[in-house]
Amino acid sequence: MPAPLVVQKFGGSSLAGADRIRRVARRIARERAAGSKLVVVVSAMGDTTDELLALAGAVTDEPDERELDMLLATGEHQSATLVSMALHAVGVPAISLTGAQAGISTDGRYGKARIANVDPRRVRDELDQDKVVIVAGFQGVSASAADRLETTTLGRGGSDTTAVALAARLGADRCQIFTDVRGIYTADPRIVARARQLPIVGPEEMLELANQGAQVMQTRAVELGWVNGVTIEVLSSFEDAPGTVIKEDPLVEQRNKVRGLAHDRNVAKITLVEVPDRPGVAAHVFEPLAEAGINVDMIVQNIGHGGATDLSFTIPRLELAKAKRLLEPLVRELGFREMTTDSAVAKVSIVGAGIHNTPGYAARMFGCLAEAGVNIEMISTSEIRITTIIAEDALETAVRALHDAFELERPERLDAPEAPATAAAG
Amino acid sequence: MPAPLVVQKFGGSSLAGADRIRRVARRIARERAAGSKLVVVVSAMGDTTDELLALAGAVTDEPDERELDMLLATGEHQSATLVSMALHAVGVPAISLTGAQAGISTDGRYGKARIANVDPRRVRDELDQDKVVIVAGFQGVSASAADRLETTTLGRGGSDTTAVALAARLGADRCQIFTDVRGIYTADPRIVARARQLPIVGPEEMLELANQGAQVMQTRAVELGWVNGVTIEVLSSFEDAPGTVIKEDPLVEQRNKVRGLAHDRNVAKITLVEVPDRPGVAAHVFEPLAEAGINVDMIVQNIGHGGATDLSFTIPRLELAKAKRLLEPLVRELGFREMTTDSAVAKVSIVGAGIHNTPGYAARMFGCLAEAGVNIEMISTSEIRITTIIAEDALETAVRALHDAFELERPERLDAPEAPATAAAG
Repeated sequence: MPAPLVVQKFGGSSLAGADRIRRVARRIARERAAGSKLVVVVSAMGDTTDELLALAGAVTDEPDERELDMLLATGEHQSATLVSMALHAVGVPAISLTGAQAGISTDGRYGKARIANVDPRRVRDELDQDKVVIVAGFQGVSASAADRLETTTLGRGGSDTTAVALAARLGADRCQIFTDVRGIYTADPRIVARARQLPIVGPEEMLELANQGAQVMQTRAVELGWVNGVTIEVLSSFEDAPGTVIKEDPLVEQRNKVRGLAHDRNVAKITLVEVPDRPGVAAHVFEPLAEAGINVDMIVQNIGHGGATDLSFTIPRLELAKAKRLLEPLVRELGFREMTTDSAVAKVSIVGAGIHNTPGYAARMFGCLAEAGVNIEMISTSEIRITTIIAEDALETAVRALHDAFELERPERLDAPEAPATAAAG
Repeated sequence: MPAPLVVQKFGGSSLAGADRIRRVARRIARERAAGSKLVVVVSAMGDTTDELLALAGAVTDEPDERELDMLLATGEHQSATLVSMALHAVGVPAISLTGAQAGISTDGRYGKARIANVDPRRVRDELDQDKVVIVAGFQGVSASAADRLETTTLGRGGSDTTAVALAARLGADRCQIFTDVRGIYTADPRIVARARQLPIVGPEEMLELANQGAQVMQTRAVELGWVNGVTIEVLSSFEDAPGTVIKEDPLVEQRNKVRGLAHDRNVAKITLVEVPDRPGVAAHVFEPLAEAGINVDMIVQNIGHGGATDLSFTIPRLELAKAKRLLEPLVRELGFREMTTDSAVAKVSIVGAGIHNTPGYAARMFGCLAEAGVNIEMISTSEIRITTIIAEDALETAVRALHDAFELERPERLDAPEAPATAAAG
């Protein structure tokens, strides 16, 4: 039987300083001693990326995006070489590779490149020489200019994507994402003391949890793993404890369908009051926002009565001032009464495969919030999620009440066969 | 007439922090506004290289040399991108290139690579697009493994060599080395208040001055410029003042032949007393030192009388303990009486083309030191240099006396036609 191939990814906080780098090296050495072949993807050490951004910001207000990518990529080069050195120091043969050396090519978009291809020859070659291969995450060379070695970066959290792409291309047996949390929880443990770590979560559920604010892994990496059938495990680099495995769960029908809660404070709400109810109005509102790169999240419009309607939507809170400037001229142009904004709102969601097809979840959610005295300002739903916008100062109350109502602290399935799928609380 | 091509090199102290980087950018912009095409070679910012070495040292006692080269090269990548960004900020089109992108390939020796070739196509291409090209100094890819992009560094001061090699290959009109001093002086201005900046110095003289402790430019870079006929100018990045031009001086015969003084405190002396005067003894002494990488500088052996002789030589002071350990067994083996060592010595040289062929310089030097009460322990000479070893605590007295004796504060040639070549002082 050939040795299992494991891809491990360590984030910046796991690599902040020489002591932590040596600890990561010892963990890698243990996995290797257990018989695995290893590819290790690393982020930049600690706050290196932020420090480099600050340096660029001190030199110029508007850093050139090509130069910025070249600059930021050095952070991962540094941590890769240091992890390799630390492995040598504990007697493990290792070699560090840049994204270019590891054969990772991208679509060439600076600052937000997508991986276009992985040429695994060099990595396989080094693995065949029995080395642990340390790959600088977050980067690749532009495929259209590969001979010019133009470095592109993959955006925040891009090292997750590097790890999953390598795992997919190499046919790895496992892809482990080491972070500063132990895994995915039913809710933020800083808010809900009884929040429970999920042993397993579906990729679709993980995507909703991450999009809604769980922020443990880059969303694209989850998607990439899902499409390529890579089993991802999220676990802590600071303790030896089982993490959360992200994969399709064959027992999904038997479970309590609400898997967890997600929340997000980075939300502002804009309402256009008494918008004339005629075709083309929505396009006029959202086009200038899209052009300015403002990401509109939830959109709610009620059917109009009397020829006018209210249009509400949410955007990231930091974009509110810019959005107001762009929309103000439209009050007269489109003829709506006024624009109101609220930056003191937050988003709370229940997430779970099957929610949309099972009656009663929405009613239970809204009932629970009502009993807790929380007013719902907006609602939207997807296949596996029900999201509400509420006042930000009610956020913690809402999250705790929902965690109780859906009994998320109770283990699921075989661990607790008595947990009734229909049990409602609160 | 085509625009002149200028290669400029900025050292770490010129790039320490965002303010200095912006100042360097403004200087480059001025040169460009004056009509030049520009290739700019940069070192790592400030103490970056030392900080990276310290980080590697904190991770492991013995950093792998390949990984160390990959790590250190990031320092120059960072400064190159930041200078490029700062140029964009002042409206100058620019692009940063790594050593690999700039076509610099090496013989592949980690930590001390020599440049094997410069492929100038990418640099020319960017120059043709009217960009200022910023090249990360101190590095190149191994020519034997160019497809694997193995990074090698050129050793301390290697950015000087990068600049001169590019100037040679591109046929640049000028190669300017910006440093934290204004140029080459007749003596160390910290010791001799009246030390004078030399407007021009021959490459051979510069090599002796640098080797003997002037330490303004990497010696290899001077050699490379000399062999390729590149005119190098050393000047300050902190003030607008003419520097020192390094080139063969056609008027060399008309000058005061002592151009400057060099000194070095990093010296220890070893004397083997009453060494049997027979063939092969010297080889037995110096072979183990060479194998241990200890660089023997001056060697003096007087002709023996009575079948025995004293053999003295100097080595870098930090190597003294190691050298003693290696040589102690030889006392019995070779049958010499004893080994004495002295680490409180220093080296003082007078440097100038033609010294060796002109009678009287040695006598004047020794006479001057005698009058100043300085005892000479060893003497050696080259074509353009006379060097003495003296007690370290007499060093400053000796340097000042020699500066006076050879009237080095007086301008040369046309500036001061009255300066007599034969004038002796002291």
